[in-house]
Amino acid sequence: MDFPEALSCPVPILTHDTVQLAHGAGGKLSNEMIEKIFLPRFLNATLEKMEDQAILHNPGGRIAFSTDTFVVDPIFFPGGDIGDLAINGTVNDICMSGAAPKYLSVGFILEEGLPFETLHRIVLSMEKAARTAGVQIVTGDTKVVNRGSCDKLFINTSGFGFVADNVHISASNLQVGDKIILSGTLADHGMAVMTSREGLSFQSVVSSDTAGLNHLVAEMLKVTPNIHAMRDPTRGGLATTLNEFAESSKVGIQLYGNNIPVKDNVRGACEILGIDPLYVANEGKLVAIVAPDIAEEMLGAMKNNALGKDSVIIGEVTDRHPGIVALRTSLGANRIVDMPVGEQLPRIC
Amino acid sequence: MDFPEALSCPVPILTHDTVQLAHGAGGKLSNEMIEKIFLPRFLNATLEKMEDQAILHNPGGRIAFSTDTFVVDPIFFPGGDIGDLAINGTVNDICMSGAAPKYLSVGFILEEGLPFETLHRIVLSMEKAARTAGVQIVTGDTKVVNRGSCDKLFINTSGFGFVADNVHISASNLQVGDKIILSGTLADHGMAVMTSREGLSFQSVVSSDTAGLNHLVAEMLKVTPNIHAMRDPTRGGLATTLNEFAESSKVGIQLYGNNIPVKDNVRGACEILGIDPLYVANEGKLVAIVAPDIAEEMLGAMKNNALGKDSVIIGEVTDRHPGIVALRTSLGANRIVDMPVGEQLPRIC
Repeated sequence: MDFPEALSCPVPILTHDTVQLAHGAGGKLSNEMIEKIFLPRFLNATLEKMEDQAILHNPGGRIAFSTDTFVVDPIFFPGGDIGDLAINGTVNDICMSGAAPKYLSVGFILEEGLPFETLHRIVLSMEKAARTAGVQIVTGDTKVVNRGSCDKLFINTSGFGFVADNVHISASNLQVGDKIILSGTLADHGMAVMTSREGLSFQSVVSSDTAGLNHLVAEMLKVTPNIHAMRDPTRGGLATTLNEFAESSKVGIQLYGNNIPVKDNVRGACEILGIDPLYVANEGKLVAIVAPDIAEEMLGAMKNNALGKDSVIIGEVTDRHPGIVALRTSLGANRIVDMPVGEQLPRIC
Repeated sequence: MDFPEALSCPVPILTHDTVQLAHGAGGKLSNEMIEKIFLPRFLNATLEKMEDQAILHNPGGRIAFSTDTFVVDPIFFPGGDIGDLAINGTVNDICMSGAAPKYLSVGFILEEGLPFETLHRIVLSMEKAARTAGVQIVTGDTKVVNRGSCDKLFINTSGFGFVADNVHISASNLQVGDKIILSGTLADHGMAVMTSREGLSFQSVVSSDTAGLNHLVAEMLKVTPNIHAMRDPTRGGLATTLNEFAESSKVGIQLYGNNIPVKDNVRGACEILGIDPLYVANEGKLVAIVAPDIAEEMLGAMKNNALGKDSVIIGEVTDRHPGIVALRTSLGANRIVDMPVGEQLPRIC
């Protein structure tokens, strides 16, 4: 999908070129910023009412509610920026429950002196991501802090959607024999941010995979509503997600090492920086756990979606070593993939 | 309501005394912080599942959804702190629609080096405010940024509740002749933060009014579901709220200056700092616009609630000067109460 009109949209003319403390004070300057920068891009009938809360139609069904704050550094990186990352991140957290994401809130913390040109570029990127995912930004808040009290801008997005009655996806639902399907290559987002931050360059640019996965999930739920577990492996990477699954379900997870796809340039960046791609954040990938008899059909449906075209079965659930994730290496050894202790990559999202 | 067990709750023992970057990485240290600091205080069956989203029962009815980010400086001030402010602020934004707030998300941005003792104190305060309001914190997120990239901590809260079918409160519903009821004294919160920041001391401490107003609103809706407009006058103060009402409804607002209550010490602080209390943030007050034939009964119901005991009718809606808020002073003059241009008080909430 293309939005040429958005990409060529000029920076609106405001009284100031940069964010002032007064833009966070709720007065005329706040309103100018909201009306020129935010409203034209996020416009919908709910947001337009400019109340302190959005009043939304309720179709019934359980509600999936999530929140995420974005502090990524740098705010622009190959393949994305803090804006589309913030939309896609919360869209993904919602849809991993099987819910169809509908409504988002956006909370900005802006540093005094931030150029409106920068803010506008990020808002355009948020608009595009929200349109692509088919979600509405229905309520928001902006705070401005004095220079040096935050790093350019931080964004919180929260949101919700509705879960069909027959969908019950949970980290504690893994069954022995289940297959583990990964929707594509690992570590693209984390390494895009890291190489961008470190100023490393490769023959081909390492690009973030940031994307909203809700349409892919909708296709998957057509195969079966009975996906056992599903998650987007962001901070902490696939290793952390699978460890949490193994612990919650009290089962073991056996990975087939040769099957885990990593792009060549991403693998190269990981080797230079001494980072294991299993622990690196992804922002447009999901891992799904499904019954073995449905696994091939699910894999086919995922491959039919652009965001799942590189999907692959990477392992299975076992009753050996409960609570442990193990990876059979190409040399035939079986090593434990432990939960990481702490930070590999600060401010990755 | 008292929570002595919470107030005497000792700081949990963690591997580190202060927040490390690793506490934001989603690994073992993140889990330690979540399990020792957040979960014991916010615990409920939904949050305990530790999924990336909360799955919530949906009773039907329209949904009121709101978000707010808190960057108040200092983080502790007389009468409250950034924690209860963050809970009460979003509770109030939700209930001003007439909705009963039910579920909140919390997103923290923590500065590397923040003492866990400080975080724990704030979390206790959030717990108490959430219990008092009767809302559940069902999902959350924590980011850690390197030292100097934020100022101690920032908190986003988002949340929602459900609006009864017969309630339609909106800034655009003001009718000529309506009465304007204020639930108590003005400017307490803003001046508590300002005097605390400036190190000013008065004979009696200026204390914030931070409070969740949802129980007061529930009492008001028993008088009539037909409250025309309602809002908590936070940033920009009562002047901003009423200007927004006048503009949305295309009516004039006439205030009776003598009736607007301000505590003596707050008035003194305003005079010293040269600040008009009409423009100062409140965090535990509401202004409601109701039909004249119901105004006295509504006032009585509000006065019966501890948070509305100082309620007073401060003005009325007029067809003169549409879009304009005017205040009749004690000297008999009628001055325009304009929308503020920008910042009087940065980082007040």
